[in-house]
Amino acid sequence: MAIVEKQNLMNFTKNVFLTFGLNEKDAAICADILVLSDMRGIPSHGVARLKRYVDGMNNGVILPLNKPEIVKETAITANIDGQAGLGQIVGHFATTMAIKKAKKSGVGIVTVRNSNHFGIAGYYSQMILNENLLGISMTNSAPLVVPTFGREMVFGTNPISLTAPAKDRKPFFMDMATSVIPRGKLEVYNREGKPLPDGWAVDEKGQVTTDPAKVIKNLLDRVGGGILPLGGEGELYSGYKGYGMAIFVDILSGVLSGGAYANLVNKSKDGKPAPANVSHFFMALDIENFIDLDTFTANMDDLMDRLQNSDKATNQKHIFIHGEKEYDNYETYEKEGIPLQDKVYDTLRSIAEQRKVEFDI
Amino acid sequence: MAIVEKQNLMNFTKNVFLTFGLNEKDAAICADILVLSDMRGIPSHGVARLKRYVDGMNNGVILPLNKPEIVKETAITANIDGQAGLGQIVGHFATTMAIKKAKKSGVGIVTVRNSNHFGIAGYYSQMILNENLLGISMTNSAPLVVPTFGREMVFGTNPISLTAPAKDRKPFFMDMATSVIPRGKLEVYNREGKPLPDGWAVDEKGQVTTDPAKVIKNLLDRVGGGILPLGGEGELYSGYKGYGMAIFVDILSGVLSGGAYANLVNKSKDGKPAPANVSHFFMALDIENFIDLDTFTANMDDLMDRLQNSDKATNQKHIFIHGEKEYDNYETYEKEGIPLQDKVYDTLRSIAEQRKVEFDI
Repeated sequence: MAIVEKQNLMNFTKNVFLTFGLNEKDAAICADILVLSDMRGIPSHGVARLKRYVDGMNNGVILPLNKPEIVKETAITANIDGQAGLGQIVGHFATTMAIKKAKKSGVGIVTVRNSNHFGIAGYYSQMILNENLLGISMTNSAPLVVPTFGREMVFGTNPISLTAPAKDRKPFFMDMATSVIPRGKLEVYNREGKPLPDGWAVDEKGQVTTDPAKVIKNLLDRVGGGILPLGGEGELYSGYKGYGMAIFVDILSGVLSGGAYANLVNKSKDGKPAPANVSHFFMALDIENFIDLDTFTANMDDLMDRLQNSDKATNQKHIFIHGEKEYDNYETYEKEGIPLQDKVYDTLRSIAEQRKVEFDI
Repeated sequence: MAIVEKQNLMNFTKNVFLTFGLNEKDAAICADILVLSDMRGIPSHGVARLKRYVDGMNNGVILPLNKPEIVKETAITANIDGQAGLGQIVGHFATTMAIKKAKKSGVGIVTVRNSNHFGIAGYYSQMILNENLLGISMTNSAPLVVPTFGREMVFGTNPISLTAPAKDRKPFFMDMATSVIPRGKLEVYNREGKPLPDGWAVDEKGQVTTDPAKVIKNLLDRVGGGILPLGGEGELYSGYKGYGMAIFVDILSGVLSGGAYANLVNKSKDGKPAPANVSHFFMALDIENFIDLDTFTANMDDLMDRLQNSDKATNQKHIFIHGEKEYDNYETYEKEGIPLQDKVYDTLRSIAEQRKVEFDI
C-alpha cells in the first residue's frame, strides 16, 4: 500500500491529461474527479481508472479535444452531444449549464448523448450541491446487469446521485448504482477467494451463483449472466424495483437525449474498441421556488437528527446518513494521505513512463 | 369473492363521496383513483381503503371540502398547501398544475404539504403520461420502515412512480414503494400463516424476524421494528440504497414543500386521530425540450423490445416491463369484472348503510 498526498496526486493526474493536448482547466477537472473519488473512499472510480482513460484516448474511443455541442436549448433545458469527448469534461460542461439555468430560471435539466465514462455520478451532483441547489445526476453505462427473469446483461449499473444541502450538518449526498453491487465487489470477492452471497449475481443460465470467478469470466466472454439489480433475483425481494430504476435511468439519460441505451451502450464488436456511447442526465433545482433556503436547510438538519437519534438495532451504534462515510474519508485522507494499492501505484508509474510525465507522487 | 362491474363500483364509490358534500367532479376523481387501483390489480389501494377515507372524513382528520391553497408559484413550479383536504383532490389539483406548466414552460414541478393519503402514486404519473409527458410522482407516508441499522419506524414506504410514453407498445409505468415490501404483504403472510422471508422485516430489537404476526403487532403498538428498505437488512444487499431513496422521497415531498417529514408524518398521539400531514411531489417534463416525441417513443419501443427479446433465465418464459401486469389486469377486469374479497364487499355494504347510499354493485 502506497500513501500519496492529495495535491501531488492531483498534479500528476493533471499532467497526464495535459499530454493529450487538454488545456489546464480541462485537465484539472479530469484530475479533480478522479482524485475526489479516491479521497471519498471510492477507489474503483479513482486514479485506478486512469489507465482506462489513457487507453481510451490512445485507441481513439475517447476524443479528448472534441468540444461538446449543444443540440437543443431552452431557458431551462439543454441537450448536449458529447462528441465522444472525455466524459468528465462533457459532464462538467453540462452540469455547469444546469446550474446556470437553475439560478436564472429556477430549474436546469441537461441531457447528454455520445459521451464517455464520466467518473463518479456524485461529482456532478456535488457541483450542484455546492451552489445550494437540489442536485440529481445519473448515467447509463456498459452492460453488466441482467433484468429480472433474464440472463443477458442488458443494463449498466446505471447509477443515480442525489444531493440536498443542510445547515449545520453535512449535506445529504447519495451516489448509488441501481444494481445490488458494483462490479468492483465481484473482483474483491474473487481476489479473496470468498463465495458471493446469494442474490448478487447469476450465471450464464440466469441462476444465482456464488462463484465470483465464473461471473467475471462470463462477463468478459459475454456468454450470459451478470450482476442482479437492487433487490436481487426474481420478485421475492423486489428485484424488479432495481431493474425498473435502471430502466428509468436509461430513459432519462439514453432515450431522452436521443443517445444510446440498453445494450447499445459500449457494445464492442469483434473485440475491437467501440465508442462508449454513454448518456447522462443532470438536474439542478432552486429550492427557493418552493420555500426559503433557511427553512429547508434547518429542516434537513432536523430530518437527519431524527434519523440518527432514532433507536439502533441490537449491536449497532450508529445510523449512517448518505455521504457521511465519504466525507469522513475525505477528512482522513486529507490529513493522512490517500492509500493506493501497490498495483494501482505501479500502473500510475507505467503511465508516467509511457506519457513521459514526471512520477513524483 | 364478489365480482363487480367497474362502472357500478365507480358510481357507488362516487355516491359515498358525494354524501360528504363533494361536488360531482371531485367525487368522481376520488372514485376513479380507488377503482383504478382495483382495476390494475392493486386492491390494497382500491375500494378496500374506502372505509379509511370515510372514517377520516367522519373524525375530522380529512377535511374534504377544504380547497388546496397555492403557497408559492412560478411559471414552472408551485408549492401547495393541501389544507388537510382529500389527498386525491389535492393530488389531482397539483398534478394538473404540473401538466399545464410543462406544456407551457417545458417543465412543471409541484410540491404539496399538509395533505392526506392520495391513493396510488401511479394515478398522478398516469395523468402526466396521458399527456405524452415524462411523469414523476412521489409521496411520503405514515412511518412503517426502519433505517439501515435502526429498529424504529422513521419512514413510510415512500413510493415513487415514474412514467414514460411509448409508440406502439404500452408505455413504461413504474409505481414502487422504496421499502422491500408494502405493508399489505405482511398481512397476506399473516393470514396464510406463512413465515416471512428473511430480510423483509425486523422485530423490536432490529433483528430480522420471520414472524408476520409479531411485526404487525409491533407496528400497532409502536414498540420498535418494522419493514426494511429495498435491499433488506444491513449493508450486504445494499439496504442503504432503499433507505436513501426513502430519504430522497422525503426530501422532495416533505422538506421541499415545508411540510412534515420522517416520523412527523401521521404521528398519532395518545391513540387519537392525528392530522396525516402527508406531503407529495409531482413533476411533468416535456420531452420535446430534448428530442422530438416521435423519436423518443420509437426508441422507447425499441428499448422495451431489447429487454423482452433478451435471453431468459432457465425456466422463465417472459421478462416483464413495468406496468405490463397492471395493464393486463385492467383489460381482464374490464371484461370479466373486478374481483373483491368478501370482507371488502361486506365493508362496502356497511359503508352504504352508514352513509345511506344505495348498495347496487
